[in-house]
Amino acid sequence: MIHTTVSGEKPDIPATMQASVLMKQGVIDVQERPVPTCAHDEVLVRVASVGVCGSDAHYYREGRIGSFVVESPIVLGHEASGLIVAVGGGVSPDRVGQRVSIEPQRPDPTSDESRRGVYNLCPHMEFYATPPIDGALCEYVTIQSSFAHKVSDAISDDAAALFEPLSVGIASARKAAITGGSSVLIAGAGPVGLVTAQVARAFGATEVIVSDIAEGRRANALRFGATQAIDPAAEDVRALRVDSFVDASGAPRAVVDGIHAVAPAGRVVLVGMGGDEYALPVSVIQNRELLLTGVFRYANTWPTALSLVRSGAIDLDSMVTARFALPDVEKALNADREPGSIKAVVTLTPTQEELS
Amino acid sequence: MIHTTVSGEKPDIPATMQASVLMKQGVIDVQERPVPTCAHDEVLVRVASVGVCGSDAHYYREGRIGSFVVESPIVLGHEASGLIVAVGGGVSPDRVGQRVSIEPQRPDPTSDESRRGVYNLCPHMEFYATPPIDGALCEYVTIQSSFAHKVSDAISDDAAALFEPLSVGIASARKAAITGGSSVLIAGAGPVGLVTAQVARAFGATEVIVSDIAEGRRANALRFGATQAIDPAAEDVRALRVDSFVDASGAPRAVVDGIHAVAPAGRVVLVGMGGDEYALPVSVIQNRELLLTGVFRYANTWPTALSLVRSGAIDLDSMVTARFALPDVEKALNADREPGSIKAVVTLTPTQEELS
Amino acid sequence: MIHTTVSGEKPDIPATMQASVLMKQGVIDVQERPVPTCAHDEVLVRVASVGVCGSDAHYYREGRIGSFVVESPIVLGHEASGLIVAVGGGVSPDRVGQRVSIEPQRPDPTSDESRRGVYNLCPHMEFYATPPIDGALCEYVTIQSSFAHKVSDAISDDAAALFEPLSVGIASARKAAITGGSSVLIAGAGPVGLVTAQVARAFGATEVIVSDIAEGRRANALRFGATQAIDPAAEDVRALRVDSFVDASGAPRAVVDGIHAVAPAGRVVLVGMGGDEYALPVSVIQNRELLLTGVFRYANTWPTALSLVRSGAIDLDSMVTARFALPDVEKALNADREPGSIKAVVTLTPTQEELS
Amino acid sequence: MIHTTVSGEKPDIPATMQASVLMKQGVIDVQERPVPTCAHDEVLVRVASVGVCGSDAHYYREGRIGSFVVESPIVLGHEASGLIVAVGGGVSPDRVGQRVSIEPQRPDPTSDESRRGVYNLCPHMEFYATPPIDGALCEYVTIQSSFAHKVSDAISDDAAALFEPLSVGIASARKAAITGGSSVLIAGAGPVGLVTAQVARAFGATEVIVSDIAEGRRANALRFGATQAIDPAAEDVRALRVDSFVDASGAPRAVVDGIHAVAPAGRVVLVGMGGDEYALPVSVIQNRELLLTGVFRYANTWPTALSLVRSGAIDLDSMVTARFALPDVEKALNADREPGSIKAVVTLTPTQEELS
Repeated sequence: MIHTTVSGEKPDIPATMQASVLMKQGVIDVQERPVPTCAHDEVLVRVASVGVCGSDAHYYREGRIGSFVVESPIVLGHEASGLIVAVGGGVSPDRVGQRVSIEPQRPDPTSDESRRGVYNLCPHMEFYATPPIDGALCEYVTIQSSFAHKVSDAISDDAAALFEPLSVGIASARKAAITGGSSVLIAGAGPVGLVTAQVARAFGATEVIVSDIAEGRRANALRFGATQAIDPAAEDVRALRVDSFVDASGAPRAVVDGIHAVAPAGRVVLVGMGGDEYALPVSVIQNRELLLTGVFRYANTWPTALSLVRSGAIDLDSMVTARFALPDVEKALNADREPGSIKAVVTLTPTQEELS
Repeated sequence: MIHTTVSGEKPDIPATMQASVLMKQGVIDVQERPVPTCAHDEVLVRVASVGVCGSDAHYYREGRIGSFVVESPIVLGHEASGLIVAVGGGVSPDRVGQRVSIEPQRPDPTSDESRRGVYNLCPHMEFYATPPIDGALCEYVTIQSSFAHKVSDAISDDAAALFEPLSVGIASARKAAITGGSSVLIAGAGPVGLVTAQVARAFGATEVIVSDIAEGRRANALRFGATQAIDPAAEDVRALRVDSFVDASGAPRAVVDGIHAVAPAGRVVLVGMGGDEYALPVSVIQNRELLLTGVFRYANTWPTALSLVRSGAIDLDSMVTARFALPDVEKALNADREPGSIKAVVTLTPTQEELS
Repeated sequence: MIHTTVSGEKPDIPATMQASVLMKQGVIDVQERPVPTCAHDEVLVRVASVGVCGSDAHYYREGRIGSFVVESPIVLGHEASGLIVAVGGGVSPDRVGQRVSIEPQRPDPTSDESRRGVYNLCPHMEFYATPPIDGALCEYVTIQSSFAHKVSDAISDDAAALFEPLSVGIASARKAAITGGSSVLIAGAGPVGLVTAQVARAFGATEVIVSDIAEGRRANALRFGATQAIDPAAEDVRALRVDSFVDASGAPRAVVDGIHAVAPAGRVVLVGMGGDEYALPVSVIQNRELLLTGVFRYANTWPTALSLVRSGAIDLDSMVTARFALPDVEKALNADREPGSIKAVVTLTPTQEELS
Repeated sequence: MIHTTVSGEKPDIPATMQASVLMKQGVIDVQERPVPTCAHDEVLVRVASVGVCGSDAHYYREGRIGSFVVESPIVLGHEASGLIVAVGGGVSPDRVGQRVSIEPQRPDPTSDESRRGVYNLCPHMEFYATPPIDGALCEYVTIQSSFAHKVSDAISDDAAALFEPLSVGIASARKAAITGGSSVLIAGAGPVGLVTAQVARAFGATEVIVSDIAEGRRANALRFGATQAIDPAAEDVRALRVDSFVDASGAPRAVVDGIHAVAPAGRVVLVGMGGDEYALPVSVIQNRELLLTGVFRYANTWPTALSLVRSGAIDLDSMVTARFALPDVEKALNADREPGSIKAVVTLTPTQEELS
């Protein structure tokens, strides 16, 4: 497959655009909205591809995630790629025409957390598609220029969009201290579990055990990084002994079982959201001096994502199981209910034209 | 294999000794037992001072701690100092006559955990006064030579015995990453909370908040390291913001409240045993990416303990609130019920003679 | 000593100010310059106190430091405190009247280095008094608002200015991994050596050996943190065994000797500038697996500095050995040649009035 | 290739054995020596395969390495595999018949360094083939049981012997903090450079640049892990920007150039021995806050080596370019002078018989 990039001539930027809007719980509508304009140090991106995340579906179905409530119409979508079509003050005009993967967060760069390198924990964060901040399921979005990461032409629009879930996997692997020769248990073979399994392998793990109760998802795991896929209903997870455990299921029982599987001084990383408060095997954590933490988004992952995808260590394209157009966002949000579904993508304006 | 000790003037070592034995739950008896002999690389220590720990009292009162059950008579006591009176093969006879603080554990030095420097997590550990291993409430004990740490003459027998609880405080402060300018919340002003507060100050913490529901214990906290002592029943612990939280209470409610008090990317260290499994505020841990772990005894703390006590940064002697003789161990075990009690010590044969 | 702070009414800001300007090597002149205006997110600070650094004197005497050359007139001084008298867009007007310590750097907050928390290594850094960026030896300066750190009233203008060299000491102690019970060798008892010694103590080091060939400076060391001061010409530095070594001398011989003094797996931190390239005992570094690094300014040190000074762990005021007015900057730059000199300060407009 | 392992029946152990002995500089002789007997906790290994290391050749040619001098006859060889044929006291007799890779060091497990997990730095170390300790170029050797690491049947005798140089690569990669997406420069494409390149890839590095002046060695690099091989005489190494630099050349010029190639906050790991003292670009280390350290052997690498080789991430067998019998050790020591040579191996008694 050979691509050519739109460049040279500046794309025409219209005054308005189509946006898929979650009006309220369960109601999606396509609306005409003004194309946003770049503030200082921002870029305007014509959206190419947007991955649908479980959190998007959750907002659509439930109208809230924990304390984040959809109180007014919001544009969903935070896994996005596209083409820079305009730049704000202080940004080199050379960036117009650049294909980019969007890191969908706007921390305050002067907060203590940002200054210490953990900008994902910035209390002033504005994050795409987290109420009340609009996301990327629309034709144009703006983002601070250094959060629009240039990607090479060999990387597809879909893959560039999926740098976002990949970043969750990278953040998880870092916190799990996965390195050459590591063994890791990953609970849950959804998209996050699968990218984490891929990242674990890319980081050198030689034993990547993925547990999932669904047979089809276990099969996916074996395609995407797992060296072994187990059914937690049939096998004794607690009898395993791994260097680290990453929960990508959000199921408290999986978390508890997984913690029992970790060797002394090992790591436990909780990615899936399983409730505000639930019982953990505290004495196991104490007696083995396990290190338990959570992953809240990510910081400084895009350069790593780019290196891993470019080198072929990570395959994102094969994770895309369905594509939809903007008017079909509702179908895209429900695609996770289709058998065999891994990741649905909403396609807007491609950045590349395939040569015939 | 029988050893004889070469030394200058050899202290007379009797064939038998007095030992305070927990016969079964609630029953302490003084018995005559053979003096142990040194195996290769061990030393024989004439015990000088033994601190009484909450775990000793717990075995005495309940007959068990979690899965560790008193199934046959056991000598309690694991906070001990004394004088080396004989050495086994491979140990320099020069060590006879040395005053030592005992690190009361016998890991397998060839286990994976020991090789990686976390010998406290060695699965083959034998630990004083943890069934079925005998402890130090007797006249003579043996220990592997490098676990008998020489102390300088300026350090009292009591202080040398209390290097053991101090080590728990050091391990906690390390895991809590306490450093110059840190703020830390410590729940529980019992002996462990107090040594942890002292260690926190010695490690440079400038804000050491100790919470305890008992007024007398809060007063102790202010004597031993706390910059502030609060009543968790009267103040909103969750509204605090500290770099790290150390639980020395074992109270699940204190643990939950304390976790809420930790700033993003902060540390939570669970020292107190509060039950095998209980509810934790998982979403707080996740959203703030807190690092939660436990302290299971300690490794490589004695050199630090020695430096801190010798420099005057830590005051252990003032924590001793009662002294008992060997026949009065039962009273010593119940001393924690006396008002104002911090640490009871059982005195055996002092290593030093006071000048008249 | 009781202070009252100027506040409430906004100070009158003149159009021009006095600035002490290094015209070229060896030539200082006081000039009238326009008072700078705040850009977005900046504050305007009326300067109160400016510490004189060895680098200021070096630019004055030599006209350069390494590749940084004074090619046009420059205002020296980067250790500064003052009063916020105006704010730029996006900054709360409540900050006017605030007493602040200035962190004299302007990194690009969107650079990779800044995003990873090491903004001191940002390649786009603009740093006070590093050619061609003007410094603080003038009546008014601007700085990005989050780099103007509020200080409490109990902290003097001088101390607030000296948070800057203190930050070098904090950065050094962190890189040297100094903690409770550490032993450290510090070469050089100039201002940086002295603050590092103080910080080492504040971080819990129990053995702080400072080496200096000058007797007077050794005496200073004993006043400011050292537990021992040695003459490297008289004592065998290489025979020491310390956990870490911080070079604050810039003397290659001191560096080499100091490295020999570090125990296996210990740290070597080079703060003093001793030349672009010189011989190091590489086999010692290798055979002991020492970790060697440098300190290039600092990041995220001001909150720690504030906690340490406020708690009394660090004494900055006593390090001030001479005060000068703006017209006497030349004398201030030469004050380091006076016997007994530690730190000279140039006093401008105090932020506080002493009550009679 | 299918293997069957000798097991079940205990091999006959003779009273004497053949040993290749370095009598003095330049003189190798095969001698009859008594077969060693196991001390407590040791195993007796019938040697199968011994890799020849540059240090062996160096002792043979020069009679010394630094302060280690061949003052009496010594058996060379420290890269060894074999079959356990007897065990000492305290070792399970089940280990007889086990195929093992030998970790050729005997630290004192009670030294401070061992207790902290850096047993390679133990001052009481006895290391194979480091004067005056005999090595493995003989028919039988003893080693402490936990330093004889069981290998699975799929791993060849040669590969098991080469776990030793692989361990140097693992130790280097750890110290260089190589992880998914890292870029690394490795100077020197000898055996250590090649295993380090392989390990770097196995740890997830996506850019592995190996520099060597010899074209043949550059070609080897591209076979074993390098993504790029450069000629430092033709290319500007200093203009590179990598996350870490590992020197496996021991050439001071390569070290200096490599340091210039490391990005701010990056790592420099010196493996090759290039002299006791030589000039380093100290200001680059300081201004970029590089972290420089050395690799002195390894600790806790065998489990990782086993995982990496078993998973196929590392290929050791293909690195063997010549095999010799025990009487031909002299040829083996000179094999590094043959064009195309990577690693010569001396074959003794294979642990496995190939099925016809």
